[in-house]
Parts: sequence; structure tokens; C-alpha cells
Amino acid sequence: MTNRFERSLDIKNGRVDMTHGSGGRAMAQLIDQLFAKAFDNPALAEGNDQARLAIPAAGRLAFSTDSYVISPLFFAGGNIGSLAVHGTVNDVALSGAKPLWLSAGFILEEGFPLADLECIVTSMAKAAQDCGVQIVTGDTKVVEKGKADGVFINTAGVGLIEAGVDLSVHNIRAGDAIIISGTLGDHGVAVMAQREGLVFDEPVLSDSAGLNGLIEAMLASGVTLHALRDPTRGGLATSLNEMAQAAGVGMRLDEAAIPVRAAVRGVCEILGLDPLYIANEGKLIAFCPAQQAGKLLAVMRGHVHGHEAAIIGEVVEDDHAFVEMTTTLGGHRMVDWLAGEQLPRIC
Amino acid sequence: MTNRFERSLDIKNGRVDMTHGSGGRAMAQLIDQLFAKAFDNPALAEGNDQARLAIPAAGRLAFSTDSYVISPLFFAGGNIGSLAVHGTVNDVALSGAKPLWLSAGFILEEGFPLADLECIVTSMAKAAQDCGVQIVTGDTKVVEKGKADGVFINTAGVGLIEAGVDLSVHNIRAGDAIIISGTLGDHGVAVMAQREGLVFDEPVLSDSAGLNGLIEAMLASGVTLHALRDPTRGGLATSLNEMAQAAGVGMRLDEAAIPVRAAVRGVCEILGLDPLYIANEGKLIAFCPAQQAGKLLAVMRGHVHGHEAAIIGEVVEDDHAFVEMTTTLGGHRMVDWLAGEQLPRIC
Repeated sequence: MTNRFERSLDIKNGRVDMTHGSGGRAMAQLIDQLFAKAFDNPALAEGNDQARLAIPAAGRLAFSTDSYVISPLFFAGGNIGSLAVHGTVNDVALSGAKPLWLSAGFILEEGFPLADLECIVTSMAKAAQDCGVQIVTGDTKVVEKGKADGVFINTAGVGLIEAGVDLSVHNIRAGDAIIISGTLGDHGVAVMAQREGLVFDEPVLSDSAGLNGLIEAMLASGVTLHALRDPTRGGLATSLNEMAQAAGVGMRLDEAAIPVRAAVRGVCEILGLDPLYIANEGKLIAFCPAQQAGKLLAVMRGHVHGHEAAIIGEVVEDDHAFVEMTTTLGGHRMVDWLAGEQLPRIC
Repeated sequence: MTNRFERSLDIKNGRVDMTHGSGGRAMAQLIDQLFAKAFDNPALAEGNDQARLAIPAAGRLAFSTDSYVISPLFFAGGNIGSLAVHGTVNDVALSGAKPLWLSAGFILEEGFPLADLECIVTSMAKAAQDCGVQIVTGDTKVVEKGKADGVFINTAGVGLIEAGVDLSVHNIRAGDAIIISGTLGDHGVAVMAQREGLVFDEPVLSDSAGLNGLIEAMLASGVTLHALRDPTRGGLATSLNEMAQAAGVGMRLDEAAIPVRAAVRGVCEILGLDPLYIANEGKLIAFCPAQQAGKLLAVMRGHVHGHEAAIIGEVVEDDHAFVEMTTTLGGHRMVDWLAGEQLPRIC
């Protein structure tokens, strides 16, 4: 689309005002000069109120959405923009789909600096490019100062599931190995550190990343994958409980096998947090028959987003759908759902 | 999904708290007992982080999104929930697609009454059923009191475009008739009245409605439709300017032909508003060759959402892409883009 307006947005010094959400000239200017420029692709450039996208054959779609309200907006290892792409790419890819297209809906608070918005939008564009997806349609709303918190972003994602791929929580069965793709707690601790102004000797970066490449490699391995899930809000503990309940099975974990960085472990000990309940944004949990777990683990370790993957437990028959753990001291404990709130606004 | 928890949500007296967004037990309870119950369908009931949806054949998707931040949340003729369904159903359907699936992302402010949320969610479910679409995937976030304004909702929508259907702003050409499906300004005036506590002898209701049934009838008529658009934020004037610019044509309107309710006209005169710039949420603008406009008009008038449809102007050659209007007094005036802000947070 050609630039509709002679005057340029003052991105360096400008701020979002109510006219940027009015549907009029200022909104069109913001869309042209910021969003359309950063996300440039043929579907978006058509300038319709919806994207039209070609589906090559009959088959199955995966469709998912998340809103992102993380605070602070910028953190070590990412910002709300890259997170909004990675999170939804992952939710689509965890079905075994190849993620292709994202929508992006922005809710902006009046007064938000355009320079910060540009930085966020640029991160989204880069994350989308890295993941091989296009942001094909979008929306911008503005609310009065004090009625939002800088910027909230919703992304929805659509992908195609190849014939024969069948990943679902309902496929999990007793005898499956439980594999985690890497260390736990990095995202939550990085965000909390930013929020609280904590400084570490060894900086902790968010693990925010698109996992579709890793998943593609896992699907190509020939291993019988049963289910994938990402342990975001509520952490590994809550994800496993949800899955155990949905699948009607129990799970047994080995605490010593669960990878956690020393720095993350240290922060958790000081603050009384449990890494099992902390959000991750670039990790997945995989379930496959135990006899194939070694092969899957090797494939995962060969990928940049899985090089610290580990087998952390097994699925057992249990009508109560309990998740239990053998601790490093050799004892046993229940791993319950997150009951209250560990860290608010982590994604 | 069976109810995972013995205790019920106290919907009558309860309020949203931060644990409802934590990813833990309280969030699962809210999802099970409110969202999943209201939106019940097979894809949602699978309990995965994404919906899996069958595409019967190769073809084209339409994909669109909108966030809804309307204030107040409840207004004469609808609420944010029904609006969030209608708006996105319409954005998908205006491509000529049959809308099938929606996602729903909720951003809730801590302290928001669960009874109000239930009312909104129930309206969404009813609107979706009326439009023949399913809400197949969703997300819930909670932010601290004062960091949002009750509830914001994002919906994204996916539909299938039948072979041979080709509606796009780029198809508009000189000689096309411009048709509006009904009266202008009802939604904006209804919301403003609610906001300002205005009372009319004749109540003005929002026109919020799903237009996919009307569009289906228009497509089935055999008329060569060139493009459809809904005049939401910025109103008819801004939509036509956007389309004129994108298509590289001019437009000439006849003010006397543009339908506006007497009550809406009265409010606009008193408050100095122009109905051409006020948002509509259940109206569409259609473009087709002038010689087929009579036939299309008859089809539209035969539908409940088009019975006040009218031919309001024509497309002309104009390199400047100006939208001009013959006024009721016989003069001519430019109809410009909305430059500032007519009514904030109207959708």
C-alpha cells in the first residue's frame, strides 16, 4: 500500500492519542507507517478488513489465541511483542501443525510512547520472520490514560496439520515417558527480576522462543508422539496436572532429572518460589512410549531449543490422576495444581 | 469436559481476582464453569491449547481480528459480548466467506463482577449460535484493578471462501452503484446515549448484528458483487474514503438517499455530530455494477438486516479519489476522512 499521507508519524517523540483508535486519518497513518511497514506481506497489503489465505488441500487447521498483558513490557530476553508471536506460534505448533498466519490486535493506552510501540512491533516482525509465519491481519484500539497498562496484545494463530499427525492430551497413556525440552523457570525469573530490579552475577534471560522448528524435527523423527504441551502460566506442575486429569492417568516425576539453572534455583530458594510452578515461554513437555524416548531425546538435543532436554518421569495408571514426585532426597511428594498465584502478569 | 472441581464458582456474588489469570486451579474453574459451559462445542471440549478444525477441500480462508474496548460495556441493543461476536463475524463474512470459527481472548480487570461476566459470556454464546459460528478456542488474562476497564475482549474469526467468490476493494470501478444496507448512526448514538445518560422519547438501539445471513443471500442472488465493507469506526465517510483511495476511484453520494432515523438525526443536530462519521455495527456498504443494483437492492430488502437498504451513490473516475456529496439543498460538498475523534471507545 502506498503511503496515504504526506506527514510522517513522529515516532521518535510522539505518543499514542485517542485519535489513533478513532478509525480516521490518524489511525490509518499509524497502520500504514508502523504496522503495515513492519509486518509487510501480500495478504496484509491487500488492505481489506480480513486476510484471504490459500489452503492447498483438504485437511485440518489448528487455531489458537492468547492475549499478552505482561508487566514490564520489556525484559531480559524479549518484550511483549516477541512473546506475543512466540506464545501463539507455540500453541499452534503443539498440535503438530505448521503455524502459518497470525492476527495481531493491539490495545494501546493513551500517552504510550510511539518509540516503544515501534520497538515492540519491530520485535514482533522479527519473531514472526524467525518462526516463518506472517502477521496477515490486525486491529488497533486506544483507551484513555489509566484504562490500560501501556499496551496489551492479542495474537491468534492458524496452522495446517499434516495428514497422519495426531497429537492430543487424550493420547497419553500409562507407559509413556515424560520429556521436558530444557530448563524450567527462566522466563518467570527473568520477568520477576526485571520487575523487582534484582541483579544477578549470571543474568537470567527469558526463554521466550518459537518452538515450531523443534516440533517439526520431533515429528520427522518417526517416533510415535502422543502429546505436546508448553508449561506456561502455572508452570510444569499445573500443566502436568491438567493433562493427567484430561487423560485419566497418573504421573511420576524424578526431581533430580528436572533441569533448572543454578541462578534460577538460587532466586527461587531466596524468594520461596518453586521452579515447578514458574512460567516458561520456550519449553515443551512431550509424551511418547518409553521405549522410543531415547530416540526422541537425541533428536531434541540436536536442536537449538532442545539441547538441554531430559526425560523427567513416566505416566502410570492412576484413577485419581495424581502427579507425584520422587524428591532428590529420595522421598515422595504430591505435585499439586497451582492453587493461588505465583507470579501475576507473567505473559 | 467434566467439572474438575467440587466447589462451584460464586457467580452471583463473586468477583474476578488475580488467581483467575494465574493458570492454576481458579483459572481452570472459571474456564470450566463459565466459558466452556457457555460456548460448549466438540473442538473446545477437547481441552487442548488449540482447536483442530476440518477443512473439507482445498480453497481459501478468510481470517480477521478485532479487540473490543467499548464503554459502557452494556448498552441499548447489546453488550461487549454480542458486539465482539457480531463484529468479527462481519469482518470475516464481508470477504464473501462463510464464518465458521471464532477465538475469544478475555482481559479482565481484578474486581470485575462474575455476574456481569456471565451475562457477557451468555450474550456471546447466543450471538455465536445466531450467526452459526462456534467459539472454539480462548484465553483468559487478569490485570490488577485500575490496569484495565472491566473487560476487554478480542475475537479472531476464520471462515471459508467458496470457489468463484472474489470480493475486494480493488474490484471497485467507475460505474458501480454504492448501496447501504440500512440506517446510519444507530450504534454510535445508542452507546453515546448510554454513556451520557440521555433519554429519548423513541429509544435508539444499537444495530449490532451478524450480517453473514444477509451476505449469503446477496452472494446467492447472482449479482456481480465487487466489494463489501462495514462502516464501523469513522462511519460511512471514512470507510468510503479508505475504499476510494485503495481502489483509485472517486465517489459521489446523494445525501437525500442516505437513510438516517429521525431520532438519530435529532441527537446529531443537537450535539453537533454528523451521522456520516458515526460507527455502525450491523450495516454494510455494497458495490456492484449500476445496472444490477436494483436486483441486489431487492434481495437486500427481503432480508431482516437489509430491509431499509438504499442506493446512495455511484463510483466515478477520479484520480484524486475524492468522495463528494450532493446535499439535500442541491449543493455539493467534500466528504473527508474523519480527522480527529468523533466518539471514543465505540467498539
